[in-house]
Amino acid sequence: MNRFVQTIPPSAIRLLHERKRPDAIDLGLGQPLLHPDMAPLDAALAWVREHGCPYSPNPGFAELRAAIAQHFAYPGLDTAESVCVTVGSQEALYLPIKALLDPQLHEALVVTPTFPAYQKLCHLEGVPVREVALDPQTGFAPDAERVLQAVTERTRLVALGSPCNPTGRVWSESELRKLTAGLATLPQPPYLLSDEVYAELYFADARPVSPALFYPRTIVASSLSKSCALTGLRLGWVMAPPEAAQVMWKAHQFVVSCADTIAQRAGLEIFRRPQLLTQHRAHYVLQRQILLSALTEVGLQFVEPEGSFYCLIRLPERWAQRSMEAAQHILEGHNVSTMPSSIFGVEGFLRVTFVAAPETLREGVRRIHRALTSG
Amino acid sequence: MNRFVQTIPPSAIRLLHERKRPDAIDLGLGQPLLHPDMAPLDAALAWVREHGCPYSPNPGFAELRAAIAQHFAYPGLDTAESVCVTVGSQEALYLPIKALLDPQLHEALVVTPTFPAYQKLCHLEGVPVREVALDPQTGFAPDAERVLQAVTERTRLVALGSPCNPTGRVWSESELRKLTAGLATLPQPPYLLSDEVYAELYFADARPVSPALFYPRTIVASSLSKSCALTGLRLGWVMAPPEAAQVMWKAHQFVVSCADTIAQRAGLEIFRRPQLLTQHRAHYVLQRQILLSALTEVGLQFVEPEGSFYCLIRLPERWAQRSMEAAQHILEGHNVSTMPSSIFGVEGFLRVTFVAAPETLREGVRRIHRALTSG
Repeated sequence: MNRFVQTIPPSAIRLLHERKRPDAIDLGLGQPLLHPDMAPLDAALAWVREHGCPYSPNPGFAELRAAIAQHFAYPGLDTAESVCVTVGSQEALYLPIKALLDPQLHEALVVTPTFPAYQKLCHLEGVPVREVALDPQTGFAPDAERVLQAVTERTRLVALGSPCNPTGRVWSESELRKLTAGLATLPQPPYLLSDEVYAELYFADARPVSPALFYPRTIVASSLSKSCALTGLRLGWVMAPPEAAQVMWKAHQFVVSCADTIAQRAGLEIFRRPQLLTQHRAHYVLQRQILLSALTEVGLQFVEPEGSFYCLIRLPERWAQRSMEAAQHILEGHNVSTMPSSIFGVEGFLRVTFVAAPETLREGVRRIHRALTSG
Repeated sequence: MNRFVQTIPPSAIRLLHERKRPDAIDLGLGQPLLHPDMAPLDAALAWVREHGCPYSPNPGFAELRAAIAQHFAYPGLDTAESVCVTVGSQEALYLPIKALLDPQLHEALVVTPTFPAYQKLCHLEGVPVREVALDPQTGFAPDAERVLQAVTERTRLVALGSPCNPTGRVWSESELRKLTAGLATLPQPPYLLSDEVYAELYFADARPVSPALFYPRTIVASSLSKSCALTGLRLGWVMAPPEAAQVMWKAHQFVVSCADTIAQRAGLEIFRRPQLLTQHRAHYVLQRQILLSALTEVGLQFVEPEGSFYCLIRLPERWAQRSMEAAQHILEGHNVSTMPSSIFGVEGFLRVTFVAAPETLREGVRRIHRALTSG
């Protein structure tokens, strides 16, 4: 067996998910419960009816790649040559780690707390990886100085998500500018892997800005999964300076050949009517308000989410160092599924999602509160 | 950059494809021109309309995995636990090479001539790979003895395709039994990676038999691409003994999370009505006859295909060691796209497909003949 594949621990998220009873209140699941707009899917099938279902070119249909590049219009990444259409954002994260790092020479630096995919992909490829943790005292506020202090001369890639899963924090433009200005002064400026899969889901004035607007070594990974309730469609993209994109295409071609033609045709419809990318945002603005009100009502502390559909609940003192136990206690004793923050690289919190129906959210919060404060 | 990704040469198939003029007669392309049956796709979309478009479990929907396992009913691979649903057969080939071999300890052995994916995937993963060539004098007849002689104690995986791309040859049950009996006597019997993507496309009585029927360390890779004219759907599967399947799932989960939900629902419809897997066979029986008649008529020699939709044309003496030049000459001078056999690891042949319309096939053959016999 491959030693790297073998030694990656099984997904804790998955294990918790499997222990969930069918009637559990699910605040653990990280996918929209909304149904997608069917028009782009219907249009995709109409295309297949007319043209059959051929392969796309390896990096994706040229018109889709051009539409993605033009929609975001990031300087230097604004042509089809910078875009590779991927199997969801998972493959969009995999390709840069697979293709751009040499395990003998480089290491990756991951900003935590975070969805653990970046580190696991590094383990999968034998790439050394270090973590730099944001400060729980500030609610994990993005902090350029902290990240820059952790960069070494081996750091080839810095990975961060904004809006962040699980913190819901958004990197402000000024903090991102500080970070990228610091990276740019290094003798070998690393790539900045910017995970933008929640970019359309932001609240109040915390509209995320991409570092690709001002740092030319930015690699953007994203997908339609969260913005359009299309997690199952597996339609993502990675954008990079053309010389890096070329190397990623090559890996993409060998691993999966190309992304699904139906998914790509649907994606093209969505980028032709980009209001479809943002039409679910108003829903999550409401959902967030319902969750935060419910938390406030029972007196649970939390990190206020600026984006995504996640919220970190701060554990009371006696559970603070045992988030996994807390999540198990809540699941087994009170039938509510949540995710312990230990999964994301930090202790002291539970991650809940606000994708469920309002009354489910409220009941879930009441049970979490009971579980954490009683016996 | 990753040294393995960087050093894989660019795809020659792709380069030739790019030099093709839009009005060229395309006998190079390895994908059906038939349109797929739309009913499974319509049913998939109806499912999404009702259920939304959620992730499937990482290895695929349990009912699809069970349907695939039960359809083939290979002993030991006949439960959902043996199946991982993949992004086409490309990922189904990638996963065993990625997950089951240790580049420090193992090597792969590939039976040639072959579609070059196996070797490239080994290069991608830094896995040493050797080739064992079948004999052009016999029309590349499958030959267990030859393969067994090439196996060493480091051989962890033997890869072969039956029906074979590009030879169209099918391994008979008796030759496969000889091969697997030999493998089974080794101190550490290797995995046999059986690429069965053309299994439904066979001619006369050359119905392919899977070595999974009698060799328990068989890994089967396949997809709906060729049997159902669904290359763009990217719906494949890899079947393996459960302990190997588990390791492959893990790699699959990190690389792409899961296959497309719409593609999987369509796949489930197809496995529920398995006559859909074979409904295009009669078409290819006719197509093959048209091609072989045309070749015979002009007096070109060929390897008689027993399966797939490929045929190897034997090059006349003066082109025999220069198949790439011959293909370029035919493309540039006579506007017909073919594939040189050098791409598949052997000299002396051109691969043509028989997916095109009958008159296109006939005209293509006439031009190839002119190109090869004239100045």
